[in-house]
Formats: sequence, C-alpha cells, structure tokens
Amino acid sequence: MAVVVMKFGGTSVANIERIRNVARHVKREADAGNQVAVVVSAMAGVTNQLVSWVREASLLHDAREYDAVVATGEQVTAGLLAITLQSIGLQARSWQGWQIPITTTPAHGAARITGIDGAEIRRRLDTGEVAVITGFQGIEPDRNRIATLGRGGSDTSAVAIAVALKADVCDIYTDVDGVYTTDPRIVPKARRLPKVSYEEMLEMASLGSKVLQTRSVELAMVNRMTVRVLSSFTAPEAMEPARMDRLEDIGTIVCDEDEIVESQVVSGIAYVKDEAKVTLIKVEDKPGVASRIFGPLADANINVDMIIQSVTPDGMHTDMTFTVQGSELPRTLETLKAAKKEIGDFEIQSSADVAKISVIGIGMRSHAGVAAKMFSALAAKGINILAITTSEIKISVLIDAAYAELAVRTLHSVYGLDAD
Amino acid sequence: MAVVVMKFGGTSVANIERIRNVARHVKREADAGNQVAVVVSAMAGVTNQLVSWVREASLLHDAREYDAVVATGEQVTAGLLAITLQSIGLQARSWQGWQIPITTTPAHGAARITGIDGAEIRRRLDTGEVAVITGFQGIEPDRNRIATLGRGGSDTSAVAIAVALKADVCDIYTDVDGVYTTDPRIVPKARRLPKVSYEEMLEMASLGSKVLQTRSVELAMVNRMTVRVLSSFTAPEAMEPARMDRLEDIGTIVCDEDEIVESQVVSGIAYVKDEAKVTLIKVEDKPGVASRIFGPLADANINVDMIIQSVTPDGMHTDMTFTVQGSELPRTLETLKAAKKEIGDFEIQSSADVAKISVIGIGMRSHAGVAAKMFSALAAKGINILAITTSEIKISVLIDAAYAELAVRTLHSVYGLDAD
Repeated sequence: MAVVVMKFGGTSVANIERIRNVARHVKREADAGNQVAVVVSAMAGVTNQLVSWVREASLLHDAREYDAVVATGEQVTAGLLAITLQSIGLQARSWQGWQIPITTTPAHGAARITGIDGAEIRRRLDTGEVAVITGFQGIEPDRNRIATLGRGGSDTSAVAIAVALKADVCDIYTDVDGVYTTDPRIVPKARRLPKVSYEEMLEMASLGSKVLQTRSVELAMVNRMTVRVLSSFTAPEAMEPARMDRLEDIGTIVCDEDEIVESQVVSGIAYVKDEAKVTLIKVEDKPGVASRIFGPLADANINVDMIIQSVTPDGMHTDMTFTVQGSELPRTLETLKAAKKEIGDFEIQSSADVAKISVIGIGMRSHAGVAAKMFSALAAKGINILAITTSEIKISVLIDAAYAELAVRTLHSVYGLDAD
Repeated sequence: MAVVVMKFGGTSVANIERIRNVARHVKREADAGNQVAVVVSAMAGVTNQLVSWVREASLLHDAREYDAVVATGEQVTAGLLAITLQSIGLQARSWQGWQIPITTTPAHGAARITGIDGAEIRRRLDTGEVAVITGFQGIEPDRNRIATLGRGGSDTSAVAIAVALKADVCDIYTDVDGVYTTDPRIVPKARRLPKVSYEEMLEMASLGSKVLQTRSVELAMVNRMTVRVLSSFTAPEAMEPARMDRLEDIGTIVCDEDEIVESQVVSGIAYVKDEAKVTLIKVEDKPGVASRIFGPLADANINVDMIIQSVTPDGMHTDMTFTVQGSELPRTLETLKAAKKEIGDFEIQSSADVAKISVIGIGMRSHAGVAAKMFSALAAKGINILAITTSEIKISVLIDAAYAELAVRTLHSVYGLDAD
C-alpha cells in the first residue's frame, strides 16, 4: 500500500467520457488499497475560452482578476471528477487551492507555491476518501486572492502536493506513455526510458520536451520525490496499480541518479527546430559590450539562448553570435537597431533556418570523448556545426535546420539508443 | 451621494459586449459620486453548460460538488466585469462569496444567507473602489465549502449585500424597465408602476411575475431596503444616476407601503395559465381527511396551490378541489390513486385547461367591494368562476384557460389601470 498522487492534464479530462476514464484509473489504485490524491487541470479548451474572454474584455488586464477568472477551469474539473468518483462507489471530495490551503507568492499568473497544509487531506486519505485537488492554483494569503502558477503549473502543483502529503510516488498521466530517447515521430527506433534522472529530465524539459514542466522537475529533485510519467489513454484496467517495488514496469520513472543502476552515457537526443541565429560582426571590443547588447533584449523580454563570442584577428573587435526563438527574430533585429547608439557600430547577419540538437546524459560526467563522437558523426554526414554550447550533462550544437532530422537519427544510432 | 448596490442578471452579462454595457451603467453611478457594489450572475448559457456537465457525470450527484462546479459561473463574470471596469478607468476588484465572507446554511443548492461581513468592502467603497460580487453563492463555514442559494438567488444576494453595506438603494437591472400593472403582451395599455409595496410585489412574484425572486422581496421587506427594478438594456447614458430624492423618475420602486402616497385600490392583475384543477368527489368527511389527501402529495413534492372544500348535501361527504402546476397533473393523479386505501373511496375529476387570474392591491384592506366588482365584471363577459381564494391584498379566481386573456384585459380596464 502506498500514498499515490495522480495528475491528469487537460486532454485527459477534455469531456465527461474522459473524466470517467480518469475515474477508472483512480478506482484501480483505490481498490488496490492505495491512498489517492488526484490533481486535475481544466478541461481542454476551457482555459482557452476563459483567456479569450479576458482578452476581449481588455488586453491590459489586472493579473489578479485574470487569475480569478482562469482558475475556475480547474474548479469545474475537480467537482466533476469528485461526482464521477462517487458515482462508481468511491468516497471523494473536491478541494480548491484556498480550501486546503495551498499558499503562494503574490506573483499572479506566475505564482510559486510557498506552503501546503496537508494535514486534513492526510486525515481523510486515512479514512479511504479520495482527494480531488485543483492544479495550477493556490491562494495569496496577504490579500486572500486566488493566484495561478502559470500555464503547465499543474505538474508543479502535483509534485508540491505529493511532497506535502509525503506521498510515495507522484504519477503524472499524459498523452504519451513515458519519456523517450528522442521524438518517435522522427526516429521510429526511439525507445521508452524506464528511468531517467532529475538532471537529465531538466535538460530535456528546457530543450523542448513537453512531457514535464521544468519547475515540477526542479521541485521533485529538491525533495527527492519519485515522479512517474504514464499515459492516461492506456486502458485503466490494463495497468497494474502502483506498487513501490515494481514502479518501473510501466511508464518512465524520474528519480535520483543514485537509483539508476545501469546508467547510459547518453540517455536522449533533443532538438529544437524553431531557432534563429543572429551574429553581430565587428563590434568594438570594450568592457561592458555584452551588457549593452543583451540588456536591451532582456528589457524587451526576448529570451536569448546560446551565446558565442569570438575575437577578430585585429584584437580590437569581437563577433557576437546568439540564438533566439524563431518567432522573436523580427523584434530582436528591431531592438538591436534601436540600441545601435549604445552598442556602437556593427554589421548584422541573421538566419531563421537553424536547429539546435542536444545530446543529454548523466554518464557524460565520467566518460570522455562524448563530444568528439558527436562532432565526428555529424561531420561524416556532411553537417556543418554553426555553434556549440555544453553543460556538465549536455552538448548542444546549432546546425542548418534542413539537417535536423538527419542529425537526430544519426546521433540516436551512434550513441546506441536505437531499439533492437 | 449614495451607496448603491446594482445587480445584473445572466442576459445582461451574456457576452463581453453586454458586460461593457454594464460597465457603463456602473461608471455613470461612480462618476456621479455614488459608491457602488455590483452583484452579478453567470453569463447566460454558462450555468446551463455547467449543470449539463454535472448531469452527464452523474444524475445522482453530491450537492456540495454541484455547488463547487456551478458557482464558477458567477466567478467568471465578476472577474471579467472587474477587468472591464478597470479598462474604462475605474478602480474595481472582484469578490467571491468566501472572500467577503458571505456565510450560508449548509443546504447546498438551496442555501440561505446567514451573515455578510461588509466591513472591508465598505472601507474600499470609501476609497472609490467598485466592489464586484458574485451573486447566488456564499460559504458554508463549518465545512469551508461553497454553497449556492439556488436558481434566481442572485436577487437575494443583492438585497442581502445592500443590507450589509447599509446601502441607500438596491437597483435590480433586468430585461424589463419596471413592474407593470399586468403583462404588456396581453394588455397593450398596461402601465409601469412607479412604486409598489413589498406585499404587493410578493403576491406578484408568487403569482408568476418573474421580475423579482420572492425571497429577495421578503428580505427587503424585513430590512426595509428600497429595491428598484430597472432595465439594463436602456442606454446607460440615457439614464440619470441614482439620486435618493428622485428615485422614482425611472423603473419601479419596491418599498414600504407607508412611502406610497397615492396608493390605488388595485395595483396589478396577474395570471398563471399553466394550472390544472383536480376535484375529489364524495370523499368521506371524517377528521383528518385533508391530511390523508395532501400528505401523500407533499411527500411526492407536488406543490398544491388553491384548495376549496365544500360539504355535500348529505353532510357526510365532502368535495375537495385543488390546483397544481399543469405539468404535475399526471403525477398528482397517480399519487392519489396509490393513496386510495388511506383516503377512502372517491370519484375524481380533473382538467388541465384552467387559469388563475389574480387582482392585487394593498388598497383592498380599506376598500369594500373589490371582490364584488371582480365577480360582476367577469360575469358580464360570461366567464364562469370555478374557484375563489382570497388574502388580505389579493383575490384569485380559477377560470377556463380559454378566457384568460379576456379576463385580464377586462379586469385591467374595470379597475382603472389602463393607460390614457
């Protein structure tokens, strides 16, 4: 018997039929003797409707009122799931963030959870009652107002609630059946990873994998909460109830690297196609030039990703290359031109047709030659590397977008990730 | 300057364009220096969607979860109106029932308000902030759960909030521009009443006028809160801001009879067409017969309206006639047949084609001959009276439904209510 937090996203609760399916997943766990808290998102489409009403009312809107409106989406799902659970014979009640309470910072629309009082819910779990909790929201205690965590925040809610309830596992149900070595649409031989470390999952999340929200992985890592990624579309009766000694039978477990016995050097290949590259040529190389370039971009809320600086042969100028999201390229160029007075004279080159390919693996720390293998494999296919950045457990390269799929397939094979 | 509570129903806030219109009504009041609290219903259609989801999830559902789901409708409107008010330069914030708090009894779906803490809202009204409050709901404090007042409860919310805020007037905006002497669709010469007493309004509400919820009128009467019925579809700029010395310039004021200087003998003619008449013939006349007839009907939740008992010439039997809602006739007949053992032998007659016509007026108390005038006017048109009931300020007759419109027009004219 275990305490299990189950989280279901918007597509898993998109209509009453799917909510019934979720209820059967919950019943499977409860029938096996597990204590269950369920965290739910808004029904797919509901949040978009609410957001579009807010925007129609006013493009410049009070974030507190936005939260009051948008938070109703999860409240509806929680009530409907509680009703559905009761209709199949389970004890259940819905909980809104303020009723628990889940307290947050006052940063409406992007609030962080500051505390969860899990005592009453724990007491009720002991009586066999299922707790159905609204994801994505809490209460900002100073002003007694509902605050949302920002889009995708329901994963974070689930992990935080699992920590507060001292749960054994936090099961995140999505529309995929686990974390893969790479995108199966590009590489049919991609394999499901039975286990992946928090650090690897973090890199994957920040590199475009949409399986788990970055913040939820950080929170799980700090609290050493075991997270599992599962598919809500697998028939509820075809899955085994959660058993702590057999968690890895299904889905992907995200856990501490110590718990991964046979760790591979490389566990996954990630890619981002929607990148744009900007190069400022012959910028005068004097102290503070980087802040004069990137300050205005930050002020304009443009997220800069890779940055490579190189010095020209004359020793007095520098070339500065960086990448931004493809859709941000026009604004980036405008912002730079407007800041020419501060930056000094420069030529500018840009390209929207670049892709970032990343090789991720905790084993890199102890294995030499991982990067060299990557570069030679790409060279063998005639793929030119435009820029490189590395971290302790990741190597990213920028290449011509036309070669993205070829590069992913090549690296997936070279690092021995292809399924048999 | 006055403290004004403004209430807007579902059709008045059905979409963002109409919410903008509501915001202009509010701005008119605020610009004139009035302090404003606004009470809103769910956008038309939203509550129906929520209720249909609940029913699809389970026909037998937990009333507490039903409330958690359905209460979100008003929460959305309150947030959207606050945003819209801010966009036209007003300070505003939304308030959900639990934030104020508005406390209620635990009767989920049909809760009664037990208390409202108006202190914080009063403080903010003094700073010029507009309070936008969810109608129809509060919090049941023992279990910390949202409770709804039942359909139409937003009128009651508005009056209760007006009382708590010691408001000068509670303006109820609807889709009609006041209370009329009768239905203008039947009598084109119907007139808007500038003032009507609580008692008369209560009779009109219970006799089918849908302008105000019965409970809201009762609450206003007990607390002597002045209520005004106005149209939200009148252009906001074409109306004068509320001024306590000139309230009667527009709409209908519902107030204490003492405040009505020139009261008329009859102030309105009401009718209900959807009535059915049931007569039990030759029921044995022994003690307790009425309770043996009406007990089973009450148990079956069938609302009995008029009751007339007459004794037959033999002195040992009685004929019992009563009316029910037309749609309840089949269930009524079934229930009576099932209870034949307890009631004793009887014959039964029923008719679904009857209408109830009522003449209402506080002046009846001091004027003789009001009833006689009614009966002779109907007789002159050849309309047969099937049953009569009276109260201090009302006379109702049951007639053949085919004559309903003729009766209403005749009485409207006879009592001098026709417009010039």
